[in-house]
Amino acid sequence: MTIRALVFDVFGTLVDWRSGVAREAARLLAPVAPDLDAGAFADAWRARYNPSMETVRSGARPYVDLDTLQAESLPGVLAQFGIAGVSEAVQGELVQAWHRLDAWPEVPDALRRLREKHLLAPNSNGHVRLMADLARRNGLIFDAILGAGYSRDYKPKPALYRDAVAAFGFAAGETMMVAAHSNDLAAAAGHGLATAHIARPHEHGPAGGETAPTVPVTHAARDLADLADRLGC
Amino acid sequence: MTIRALVFDVFGTLVDWRSGVAREAARLLAPVAPDLDAGAFADAWRARYNPSMETVRSGARPYVDLDTLQAESLPGVLAQFGIAGVSEAVQGELVQAWHRLDAWPEVPDALRRLREKHLLAPNSNGHVRLMADLARRNGLIFDAILGAGYSRDYKPKPALYRDAVAAFGFAAGETMMVAAHSNDLAAAAGHGLATAHIARPHEHGPAGGETAPTVPVTHAARDLADLADRLGC
Repeated sequence: MTIRALVFDVFGTLVDWRSGVAREAARLLAPVAPDLDAGAFADAWRARYNPSMETVRSGARPYVDLDTLQAESLPGVLAQFGIAGVSEAVQGELVQAWHRLDAWPEVPDALRRLREKHLLAPNSNGHVRLMADLARRNGLIFDAILGAGYSRDYKPKPALYRDAVAAFGFAAGETMMVAAHSNDLAAAAGHGLATAHIARPHEHGPAGGETAPTVPVTHAARDLADLADRLGC
Repeated sequence: MTIRALVFDVFGTLVDWRSGVAREAARLLAPVAPDLDAGAFADAWRARYNPSMETVRSGARPYVDLDTLQAESLPGVLAQFGIAGVSEAVQGELVQAWHRLDAWPEVPDALRRLREKHLLAPNSNGHVRLMADLARRNGLIFDAILGAGYSRDYKPKPALYRDAVAAFGFAAGETMMVAAHSNDLAAAAGHGLATAHIARPHEHGPAGGETAPTVPVTHAARDLADLADRLGC
């Protein structure tokens, strides 16, 4: 089946969240924590990401966006690193770190190539403004922003995959989920989407990242440029 | 207050629905209705637009997208013009006419200018795919697609204006609704949005269009380029 639309995981797949959050944390926390292991700080914050989303996925609370969840997680991360005295204003700036992430180097050009033949949208757990800010920062052009903001829930809940297919209106098999995470692709495949795995061996810094999918996928690509090659773009 | 985001009505404001629908209707119905008054056909179809949306707005039925409503309205329009024997395939193509509309001439360049300083999104009664197709056809670049698809309801229901503000996360007064229709702007102003009226004297062909707002607005512009001038873009 011809692929007509590509929907993307963003954190880890299109942008390098760890380096960006570490850079901003080092800068913003320098006055109170000059010896901070900023990479470990980013990892610790990210580790709270899934449990925080689970409060929405489970139905325990109504949908709130990722900025809200990150803001709620932050005091625990600061306490974990023994950091006190961070003003609310600085905490707000730290949450904005997630809006100031850089794309992996090949992404802007590869997305331009993919856009020539396909409709493109993020299908991320990030909301509209977060996706718009990351797109603007990195010169990425999408046809729409789908994902958590559009579906008012978090991956891997079924709504995210079903809504992504329905929004563009192609068959599920004509819609490809692109992600660096096998669990995301397994969920997408369960709803009939085609899938592409992108290797991101440095997503978690020293802790690595997925170099290959652990589930069956339509394409396993070295990076987004490799996927563009495979799709004939 | 500085305007940070612009959200746009699309049918009539950014694109010329009447000429485009008439062109496609004339082409597709030529075999069965060679003497069709295609402009009147477009007007008659458009006249069913509001009543069809009302079935969703009122809560009488769950949200369905504009393609669905246009497809449901079409047999009545055909009957009104005494046209019989239109296959389902051709009816489907007629619905696609709404995806093949041309922007008013100044729109592509004016949007590029406005995008330099503002986040931009359609806030239309059209759904994601419809907006994406119109944007691609006319070379328009948006930061997101808001509106009926995002809110699962139709203007002027409050959700459309509230969600458009919340999606970009600026204050309501930093978010400007741009439309050629005073009723849309009155509703937006009721939710605290700034408003810009765009004169479209030819929206309805011989029947004209709004040359000036009938309600108080933040800006009353001759066209979208004039609005870009007024916003210092």
